[in-house]
Amino acid sequence: MTDTPPSAFLEQLTAALPAAALRDIAPHYLEEPRGRWQGHACAVVAPDTAEQAAVAVRLAADAGVPVIPYGGGTGLVGGQVADCGAAPLLISLERMTRLRSIHPDENVMVVEAGAILSDVHDAAQAAGRLFPLSIAAKGSARIGGLLATNAGGVNVLRYGNARDLCLGLEAVMPDGNIWHGLKRLRKDNTGYDLRGLLIGSEGTLGLITAAVLKLAPRPAGEGTALMVVDGPAAALKLLALARDHMGEGVSAFELMHRQSLDFLAETMPQVRQPFAARPEWFVLIDVGLARGLDPAEALETLFADALEAELVSDGLIAQSEAQRAEFWSVRESVPEANRLIGSVSSHDVSLPLGAVAGFIEKGGEVIAALGDFRINCFGHLGDGNLHYNVFPAPGRSRADHAGQREAIKRAVHDLVHEMRGSVSAEHGIGRLKVDDLERYADPAKLVAMRAIKAALDPRGIMNPGAVLRI
Amino acid sequence: MTDTPPSAFLEQLTAALPAAALRDIAPHYLEEPRGRWQGHACAVVAPDTAEQAAVAVRLAADAGVPVIPYGGGTGLVGGQVADCGAAPLLISLERMTRLRSIHPDENVMVVEAGAILSDVHDAAQAAGRLFPLSIAAKGSARIGGLLATNAGGVNVLRYGNARDLCLGLEAVMPDGNIWHGLKRLRKDNTGYDLRGLLIGSEGTLGLITAAVLKLAPRPAGEGTALMVVDGPAAALKLLALARDHMGEGVSAFELMHRQSLDFLAETMPQVRQPFAARPEWFVLIDVGLARGLDPAEALETLFADALEAELVSDGLIAQSEAQRAEFWSVRESVPEANRLIGSVSSHDVSLPLGAVAGFIEKGGEVIAALGDFRINCFGHLGDGNLHYNVFPAPGRSRADHAGQREAIKRAVHDLVHEMRGSVSAEHGIGRLKVDDLERYADPAKLVAMRAIKAALDPRGIMNPGAVLRI
Repeated sequence: MTDTPPSAFLEQLTAALPAAALRDIAPHYLEEPRGRWQGHACAVVAPDTAEQAAVAVRLAADAGVPVIPYGGGTGLVGGQVADCGAAPLLISLERMTRLRSIHPDENVMVVEAGAILSDVHDAAQAAGRLFPLSIAAKGSARIGGLLATNAGGVNVLRYGNARDLCLGLEAVMPDGNIWHGLKRLRKDNTGYDLRGLLIGSEGTLGLITAAVLKLAPRPAGEGTALMVVDGPAAALKLLALARDHMGEGVSAFELMHRQSLDFLAETMPQVRQPFAARPEWFVLIDVGLARGLDPAEALETLFADALEAELVSDGLIAQSEAQRAEFWSVRESVPEANRLIGSVSSHDVSLPLGAVAGFIEKGGEVIAALGDFRINCFGHLGDGNLHYNVFPAPGRSRADHAGQREAIKRAVHDLVHEMRGSVSAEHGIGRLKVDDLERYADPAKLVAMRAIKAALDPRGIMNPGAVLRI
Repeated sequence: MTDTPPSAFLEQLTAALPAAALRDIAPHYLEEPRGRWQGHACAVVAPDTAEQAAVAVRLAADAGVPVIPYGGGTGLVGGQVADCGAAPLLISLERMTRLRSIHPDENVMVVEAGAILSDVHDAAQAAGRLFPLSIAAKGSARIGGLLATNAGGVNVLRYGNARDLCLGLEAVMPDGNIWHGLKRLRKDNTGYDLRGLLIGSEGTLGLITAAVLKLAPRPAGEGTALMVVDGPAAALKLLALARDHMGEGVSAFELMHRQSLDFLAETMPQVRQPFAARPEWFVLIDVGLARGLDPAEALETLFADALEAELVSDGLIAQSEAQRAEFWSVRESVPEANRLIGSVSSHDVSLPLGAVAGFIEKGGEVIAALGDFRINCFGHLGDGNLHYNVFPAPGRSRADHAGQREAIKRAVHDLVHEMRGSVSAEHGIGRLKVDDLERYADPAKLVAMRAIKAALDPRGIMNPGAVLRI
């Protein structure tokens, strides 16, 4: 599946870039984590500077060769792999990994787009600060990709998503010019929000080469609790109560169902079950508080008030860092347990918080009407973001339901849309959800998106086929 | 200065809209607070619904008549008044003031764009919540205008600016279609960030008719202190220390100079001077803390640590709500004192926090080289946002320096730009700073902005002449 590219373009590229920037088309550039697509490419370059990246984009623009910005390759919706059309040039950020500067008193750092998330975490920590964005793929995901997809994760409730954590960008625009927008400013009302537009555009409007990231002070003390709730509606009230008590101190608020504990017991018995009897619904609450407050005490007070308000019936408050890690390991092991069971269909959706309980109820009815399935619904309740996964009944496998996958997906997404939610909360559109975007997006927004794409990338070279149909 | 409009357009407008939507061209629609521009208009309409607004925009688009979205009329850069070109249609949001819904458990409210900011504050408070955006003009500014200009104010440090406080929009696009984007979602990665793009575009890309606003929990306890610092650099270190102690609990951090106290003593002797001897530099710190913390005690602890670190030399911690109000009245009276003295030139600038002290030092040298002036520099240090105002020496008036105004503005803005700051932190570009934007903006950003404007508003009807030159 390797097209023959215009040889003149490859010659120009070789002549214009230093040898170190030219890469072999290694297989890993053409794969993605879920194995749904096999990409192709005419060349891979790894520029060392924004100027080198700009040279590559300009040559591609002149030759009409598609460009795919390539970060850590961890995206789940195929934004990083082109599997049809002319073979693209992959521009990998792997050599642009510098921490350009860090400003602890400003709560700011400036990093290149190839920096790996966990390295950014370490650099912030070494400066006594926190970079709060955190996702499972933090050991390989790169800042440029995290921004291009507006990544989320477990701390969005408190700190926002990737867009909220970025003050400025340096990017190569589709015409090959560099936008020097690395502003370390908290207030800047000089023109349109090009920063916010490029963030989340999945490489279709430009190539991010560096970013100004917002850091946060490290909380003085942290604590974690598991609390058994009567259901999703009670969990939502508990969240509101927690925020009344602790304000922004609530860092994560994760909803879980008994199905998760059952799957863990079945597939990962080494994960310690927190409750003697597995509850129907429970939440994990993580807090990071200011000096003078004891997190465990604050969680005790919250639990007592919640008990009085009949929102909770049982609770466990971590008494040590080891216990905090144990509670978190329950939550963090759920995706692996799900993988071992094997879902028929999985969905990354968000809803207005007030609609979450109703969605879970109606979702159960909708799925039951389609057959005998198990549902494991869990996620970032504080953000209204549910991972809503549908599994075969015991004794059956996902292969038994292969033909029902589309119907399940459609039923779940239709319900989400009807309840004014989003069919892509965190992962983006990529190539996987182009049809969903066309089906569910507001028509005026789609018109505006297409107009913006055509205006900024008139030759359509930037990641064609991602987000918008070619 | 009233042009004769195409009479067919006015006839169509009259036929298409209910009588209650048709307004006289009252003088106040054509004026702005600083009296720099006198606008003109061919008609004023006040739609009651987004659909009526859409009808008006579509008719204007067909007739090629410019459209000016009109909120509270409080903007300081002339974004709301067209003073040349074809006489525009003003679309006033004054009748779209409904609170469509409020969701305290979600920390969300949905309001129409004509809602006045102080009414939004009241509605949030009645629901036990806080809408944190606050500016001096809160009694007349409307939500649509606040969003269109990405308003800032004193609480940006903690809660962000208008863009950060909005989850979704309903807007009439330049082609007269309505974008139904009133999503109450914290995570939604389905396509480009049209919300962020319209916010801050000053009515040049569409007309905002309603918005989903983020609310915050009300802090359990609040406190205020004034602390004398060695200078801006020490103030910045004090801010970092305060955030180490209290995290997000620091709501406002305002830098003030002795010049403010001198001006207050001269023009507003009724404002109580907080210090026996007026200090060179001091800060106002406002905190809002979670349950279990006493704000006055937390400020005492901060002061003790700061004293040990030699960042502060004196301090006053409010012991009552009355004293908090007294401290705030010092800060809030400064703009009026400035007005009574009469500035030669005033500037709304922002800088990287680490550059603030250097800017203040160099700014003093730059101004001194231009003549004998007094500088009153104060502002939202936590955001790097300074109000940098230049006054005549005692015994002289602003009129004596009328010819120097442009040179002062240019010198201040050149210095801000050189230090990687912004020449419009809060107020926007409007018609006042179109030249500044062209002079200081990154060329690639300007190219992108013009392309976006042409793509979304190909006929150029939306607020022509604001932000971008026609």
